[in-house]
Amino acid sequence: MDQSKTPIYSALVKHRNKENISFHVPGHKNGSVFFETAKELYKNILEIDVTEISGMDDLHYPTGIIKDAQQLTAHLYGSKSSYFLVGGSTVGNLAMIMSMVGTGDQILIQRNSHQSVFHAVELSGAMAIYLEPEIDIETGLSLGVSISVLKEAISRYPNAKAIVLTNPTYEGYGQSLYKHVKIAHEANIYIFVDEAHGAHLLVEDNRWPMSAMKAGADIVVHSAHKMLPAMTMSSFLHINSERIDENKVRQYLKMLQSSSPSYPLMASLDVARAYLAKMVSDGCEKVTNELMELKKELMEGETWHLAPPIIGDYRQDPLKLTFLTKGNASAYEWQENFESYGMYPELVTPNHLILTLPFSIEGIANTRKLCNDIKTCLFIQNFLEAGVKLSNIIYNKQHISEPILSLEELNKVSKKHVYLEESLGEIAAETVTPYPPGVPLILRGEEIQSFHIEKLKFLKNNDVYFQTGDLWKEIGICVVNYSR
Amino acid sequence: MDQSKTPIYSALVKHRNKENISFHVPGHKNGSVFFETAKELYKNILEIDVTEISGMDDLHYPTGIIKDAQQLTAHLYGSKSSYFLVGGSTVGNLAMIMSMVGTGDQILIQRNSHQSVFHAVELSGAMAIYLEPEIDIETGLSLGVSISVLKEAISRYPNAKAIVLTNPTYEGYGQSLYKHVKIAHEANIYIFVDEAHGAHLLVEDNRWPMSAMKAGADIVVHSAHKMLPAMTMSSFLHINSERIDENKVRQYLKMLQSSSPSYPLMASLDVARAYLAKMVSDGCEKVTNELMELKKELMEGETWHLAPPIIGDYRQDPLKLTFLTKGNASAYEWQENFESYGMYPELVTPNHLILTLPFSIEGIANTRKLCNDIKTCLFIQNFLEAGVKLSNIIYNKQHISEPILSLEELNKVSKKHVYLEESLGEIAAETVTPYPPGVPLILRGEEIQSFHIEKLKFLKNNDVYFQTGDLWKEIGICVVNYSR
Repeated sequence: MDQSKTPIYSALVKHRNKENISFHVPGHKNGSVFFETAKELYKNILEIDVTEISGMDDLHYPTGIIKDAQQLTAHLYGSKSSYFLVGGSTVGNLAMIMSMVGTGDQILIQRNSHQSVFHAVELSGAMAIYLEPEIDIETGLSLGVSISVLKEAISRYPNAKAIVLTNPTYEGYGQSLYKHVKIAHEANIYIFVDEAHGAHLLVEDNRWPMSAMKAGADIVVHSAHKMLPAMTMSSFLHINSERIDENKVRQYLKMLQSSSPSYPLMASLDVARAYLAKMVSDGCEKVTNELMELKKELMEGETWHLAPPIIGDYRQDPLKLTFLTKGNASAYEWQENFESYGMYPELVTPNHLILTLPFSIEGIANTRKLCNDIKTCLFIQNFLEAGVKLSNIIYNKQHISEPILSLEELNKVSKKHVYLEESLGEIAAETVTPYPPGVPLILRGEEIQSFHIEKLKFLKNNDVYFQTGDLWKEIGICVVNYSR
Repeated sequence: MDQSKTPIYSALVKHRNKENISFHVPGHKNGSVFFETAKELYKNILEIDVTEISGMDDLHYPTGIIKDAQQLTAHLYGSKSSYFLVGGSTVGNLAMIMSMVGTGDQILIQRNSHQSVFHAVELSGAMAIYLEPEIDIETGLSLGVSISVLKEAISRYPNAKAIVLTNPTYEGYGQSLYKHVKIAHEANIYIFVDEAHGAHLLVEDNRWPMSAMKAGADIVVHSAHKMLPAMTMSSFLHINSERIDENKVRQYLKMLQSSSPSYPLMASLDVARAYLAKMVSDGCEKVTNELMELKKELMEGETWHLAPPIIGDYRQDPLKLTFLTKGNASAYEWQENFESYGMYPELVTPNHLILTLPFSIEGIANTRKLCNDIKTCLFIQNFLEAGVKLSNIIYNKQHISEPILSLEELNKVSKKHVYLEESLGEIAAETVTPYPPGVPLILRGEEIQSFHIEKLKFLKNNDVYFQTGDLWKEIGICVVNYSR
């Protein structure tokens, strides 16, 4: 298949060039009706922001340009079939889980999954069993689920229907999933992978993590907007085995996604796929070498060290730079420094800061020119008195756990608020999620343990932002009221 | 509040003007990394396609520019609070229904609702009761639910938790919902309105339909991209009464929408609101007069007549032109004519064609210049032998109905396929939806009646497109297999 073709993008441009008159939605009429101040900026994109008119196919039942674009994608990734998503990997995770597990089914979930995975489990009515990821003691970073935990989980829950893994992690660490897939399939369990951060991992070079597509996972979800160049909210869902009832997945994608999907987003998926195909066929050796050189230059300084390219069986995505604080440095000061230089990082927590790098030879060359600026920004002027302990070494020592109450049970019981300090042993009735990266620290239905309290105290003291709100800081955490 | 302000759009432009270096997702790095051919077209929009970096707020927990933009929207529409949606009205309908009704709850549904309403009911586990809309015998058009049907439904289902209405219809017909709201609230029933086609209905002129916002509906969903100038997939959800537990709605919006919402889409909502505010404050008398003149010019010809501005208690949105065929004319020939003139209609069925008009004085003036072209396109050369009967006069005479089997029950029984001609009295196990407009003709769980068969034959003979697929034409409709 000719991977330089871009069926959706090309059809949109062809349609635009005919200078048609729009008597259809959207109301901006190819950009001619729009808020005056914003007209110029939006002009080009609105000319291709069309709807399902003649020739433009239909995402929910594709037979033309969208079908062709999806087939090119399937061919590139080697999937059975690939679907374009306009609701982000969120909708991919929802459809993947909701279509394949139902009320009462057991599902094994990597505990440091994205919140959308937990939302999907909630909406499906399935019963979650949480698997703790490995923790790297040196860096404090969460990694993936180990083979031994997977095996133990399957022996304890032999009727589990599916397992959901996250690979690579937010910080870019990925392991080969061949063994995980083999073990899951032998136990007749579906294996789903949230590979949101790994849509680009087709590079044939063992300095990069390997894609779960190659390992044979049943369904894989990719954010094309994270590490590939597509518009935000554009993602792929790949059906990667014969085990999956594709009609069911399609039905959920149809229910959960807009019936008027955005053509600029779909076309950006089309061109992102063509971009990746070119990178892969050009070979990424030079890109990889440059990235390795860059990492060497930035490996360590007085106040920081870079998370290493390899931790055990995990490889880090070379496009991720993860700076870890040393001693009493605070990564928030780094953030201020970076922003004063006009450089915007991806993620900042009290003790680490992530930069994601451009996936292009020019982009990496430009980044290398910024090395001195980056080092300057990593210099700290105001060391904290108390210092910042690596928060991730506060973790759950129980490798496999279940919520005490199901969400259904939780909806029926009365609740109260208790202060963090007094919450040990209570059953949480709210989920608490620091953001980024949006991994829940406490999940509704879980018993609150001392490591939760320790970690929450740490995050609170360091002014971390909570996407689930700050009410727990003021009136306490919402828990089950057993006294009533 | 100063409705000329655009907090999100302005902040994005300000950020762009600083020429920052992106070390964050999306991978296109402000547009510098992108498929070469598409770089120029996407350039401007990618510069504002950012993520939740400093100053850019968070759609799922807004405290800054997104909060401000939503408050301006709430102020303009007079809502209690308004939410920006990046998953279209689809996600609005899902969140509205799934947050407020649950397993086993009874919910009254206008039968000609958009498929997303039926999907929401399915996902919620609620039990649907279908209310047939009024049909206009002259034009064959489906309208809204009458007061008498509403009253009867409530007396038969006094425990119903909510009613979902669609107002205005696809063809633009809307009724005042004051009485519906009063009756529903007296019976302690929530009233939700899918007003996807009516986001602009703040015009103070009785030649326009009235918004359900003014009538006091509890939740109203608006597609800002249909009749207002926002990007496709951009919508509003308005909480319009104290009856609604807003936290629940917010929770579902968070679960169902991308955790990386698109800033170009959110900014387009921001400027669409500012655009509407200006139109409303300028007064729309001139616009309305021009539209009325346009309609007079196009009212009737040898092969067509225009659906009237008023049918009973319904007013038609002046921005919708609905041409109905006369005699043996086929609207598909109209479509070909229009497209050969470079004019793309919104919707075509065998016997009607809809044009949506630009909501701007210049746009309407330009449309008036096209009147002769439009009339030429409505001329028919090849009359059909059999002629095309108005399909909508084939309708259900039963005003209120329930599915025979719930979706849960349906999942458990065995199925078979029977040809259309032999399907009378069978229980459908698949939904059949002609598209556009995406209103299901047969819903899973319903008994197949003679009017279903008649209408399906008609649509099949006229090559109507089915978004749910064409398998039923080849191997028959999927129905419950009672013989097993």
